[in-house]
Amino acid sequence: MALIVHKYGGTSMGSPERIRAVAKRVAKWARAGHQMVVVPSAMSGETNRLLGLAKEVQPAKVDDAVLRELDMIACTGEQVSVGLLSLALQAEGQPAVSYNGWQVPIKTNSAYTKARIESIDDVRVRADLAAGKVVIITGFQGIDEGGNVTTLGRGGSDTSAVAVAAAMKADECLIYTDVDGVYTTDPRVVPEAKRLSTISFEEMLELASQGSKVLQIRSVEFAGKYRVPLRVLSSFTPWDIAIDEEAKSGTLITFEEDEKMEQAVVSGIAFNRDEAKITVVGVPDKPGIAYSILGAVAAANIDVDVIVQNVSHDGRTDFSFTVHRNDYARTVDLLKNTVQPATGALNIIGDAKICKVSIVGIGMKSHVGVASTMFKTLSDDGINIQMITTSEIKTSVVIDEKYMELAVRALHKAFGLDDPAKVV
Amino acid sequence: MALIVHKYGGTSMGSPERIRAVAKRVAKWARAGHQMVVVPSAMSGETNRLLGLAKEVQPAKVDDAVLRELDMIACTGEQVSVGLLSLALQAEGQPAVSYNGWQVPIKTNSAYTKARIESIDDVRVRADLAAGKVVIITGFQGIDEGGNVTTLGRGGSDTSAVAVAAAMKADECLIYTDVDGVYTTDPRVVPEAKRLSTISFEEMLELASQGSKVLQIRSVEFAGKYRVPLRVLSSFTPWDIAIDEEAKSGTLITFEEDEKMEQAVVSGIAFNRDEAKITVVGVPDKPGIAYSILGAVAAANIDVDVIVQNVSHDGRTDFSFTVHRNDYARTVDLLKNTVQPATGALNIIGDAKICKVSIVGIGMKSHVGVASTMFKTLSDDGINIQMITTSEIKTSVVIDEKYMELAVRALHKAFGLDDPAKVV
Repeated sequence: MALIVHKYGGTSMGSPERIRAVAKRVAKWARAGHQMVVVPSAMSGETNRLLGLAKEVQPAKVDDAVLRELDMIACTGEQVSVGLLSLALQAEGQPAVSYNGWQVPIKTNSAYTKARIESIDDVRVRADLAAGKVVIITGFQGIDEGGNVTTLGRGGSDTSAVAVAAAMKADECLIYTDVDGVYTTDPRVVPEAKRLSTISFEEMLELASQGSKVLQIRSVEFAGKYRVPLRVLSSFTPWDIAIDEEAKSGTLITFEEDEKMEQAVVSGIAFNRDEAKITVVGVPDKPGIAYSILGAVAAANIDVDVIVQNVSHDGRTDFSFTVHRNDYARTVDLLKNTVQPATGALNIIGDAKICKVSIVGIGMKSHVGVASTMFKTLSDDGINIQMITTSEIKTSVVIDEKYMELAVRALHKAFGLDDPAKVV
Repeated sequence: MALIVHKYGGTSMGSPERIRAVAKRVAKWARAGHQMVVVPSAMSGETNRLLGLAKEVQPAKVDDAVLRELDMIACTGEQVSVGLLSLALQAEGQPAVSYNGWQVPIKTNSAYTKARIESIDDVRVRADLAAGKVVIITGFQGIDEGGNVTTLGRGGSDTSAVAVAAAMKADECLIYTDVDGVYTTDPRVVPEAKRLSTISFEEMLELASQGSKVLQIRSVEFAGKYRVPLRVLSSFTPWDIAIDEEAKSGTLITFEEDEKMEQAVVSGIAFNRDEAKITVVGVPDKPGIAYSILGAVAAANIDVDVIVQNVSHDGRTDFSFTVHRNDYARTVDLLKNTVQPATGALNIIGDAKICKVSIVGIGMKSHVGVASTMFKTLSDDGINIQMITTSEIKTSVVIDEKYMELAVRALHKAFGLDDPAKVV
């Protein structure tokens, strides 16, 4: 008997019929003797519907009081989902009980719309499991110290599931989604993309953070930190397939490097067009300048991704970084109104029509020339590179948005991922 | 400066546009210097949508575990409403904060789908009011001792509003609805029905309990118990009418009998076709028989309304009562399976095609012949009376459903309520 956490995405929960299929699948696992905790997302489209309603009445200026209400509204989608799934399980003859994040409780900080989990109390959940119930917990939600409802931001249900699995020391966390695993790149862009049967935690982290929509990055961080065995698999296989077969499907995220991983230099290509580029032009180059710019951005709770500082000329330098496109206008305003006057920068310029393309592979650590192969491939197709950033297992470039598909296809081929004979 | 509670029904909250109008109205009251607490219902249609989803997945057998999930699902409608109204108030420049029942907290017992409020803690709400915020609290919801979400049943938002007003000793509780007050009877049935500018608490209680849809009965009970000044008024007057004028509109529910009330013998006619009649036939007539029947019904959490026990013949009697139509089949099953074998009753029969028509008036106390006028009026129209029940200020009859409109119109006329010269 194992303790298993299942997470189901919005598409899997998209209709009463699909919810019934999820219930049958979970009941099958429970009948096999496992203790089951399930974390479902809101029904697909529901969070957008709710935030659409909010948009029609909310003030132009978005402050904490507004964000608090957006969380209050948005988190109801998950509450409906857990109740429906509990009912569907009970209809299968499987005792079940649903909880909101605040009932568990899942405690978070107070960063509304992008809160971080601080602790999870599992006493109540364990008592229900011991009583033979399937426990269904809302994804996405938590409660802060002041008793206010918080949400973890888009894709937060993955994080909730992994955090619950970590807190309860679950034997495995299965993320059911509308794809059947992690691919070398998005099959919609490159039809030759192949499913990876395993991927290392580090690679998955880079792939997720670089825009692969399979798993939310924070869930992967959580899984790595607490060594939660994590599997991504499809919720569209028939619910009654043999449990042994199902338990081995999808992509397993592993924490040990094995031989096979060493063989692949580049495991996958990730891409992301959700970012925008901002440059603080001609800022006086003195110690503390990065902090004077990014400190103000962080204080406004805006996440920064790629950061590049060019060499200085005449005591001035250009400082560039990328933010989420939704934060673009707000960041430019902030810089113009506070950072530019404070630092004496000459100008603030930006571009929202960019994308980021990354090659990811644990093999990069021990192979030279991977980055230069990437740059040559892009050059051969006449694609200009605007920014470059690298890590031990990843190289990312920022390019004009219009070249994104072309770049991904060229890189997928250049690193041999198209090769049908290659084992991945 | 007064402490005022506003309650808005689902129609008033039915769209973002209407929510904006509610926000403007509330902001007007706040600007006039009042401390404002607002209790909105779910957007119209939302509770039905949610329970419709639940119906598609829920088990056939409805036990407490199922009812708990129905509450979990249904209460999200109110959560969305409070968030949206808070945003709309903030868009008006009026600081506001929303709370779920569990955040206040509003504590209830654990009777899911029809919970009763046990206590309300107003510390958090008072702190927000003192800070100049409008406080918006979900109607309909509460939390039980075990930390589970409960709902108060249909129309429960009225009860929430009055309970909050009572707990906070509010100066007045204004119930905004889609009608402009309490009428002598439903104007859709009797076009000559007239609005009452005041009505006594006792009459309102009888009118509400007899099926007037204006106010939920428990809210009126609460108002009476805690002497909460209660006003029913329309949310469809322009939001910017003078606050003095608005504060005097609608119908005020009063707690003192005044001269005017003494003049009207019958204040209104109420009717209700939500009930069904059940008769336990030929039950041995011995002490404790009423309890042996109704005890079992109450244990199943089924509310009973009219109760009639006929005189006995040959040591056996017929025991009749009415329940809500939704509980009809369940009650008949219960009686056949447990009460009939236990008591030795000869048969269980019932009829769902009935209605109840009541005349209500505090003047009845001091006037003879009111009931007989009622019976004569019905007799003149050939309407057979199946059951009769009376109280100090009300006489109700159960008749065949098909005669309902006819009976209401005839009684409205017979008691002079049609008379345009009569002051009400």
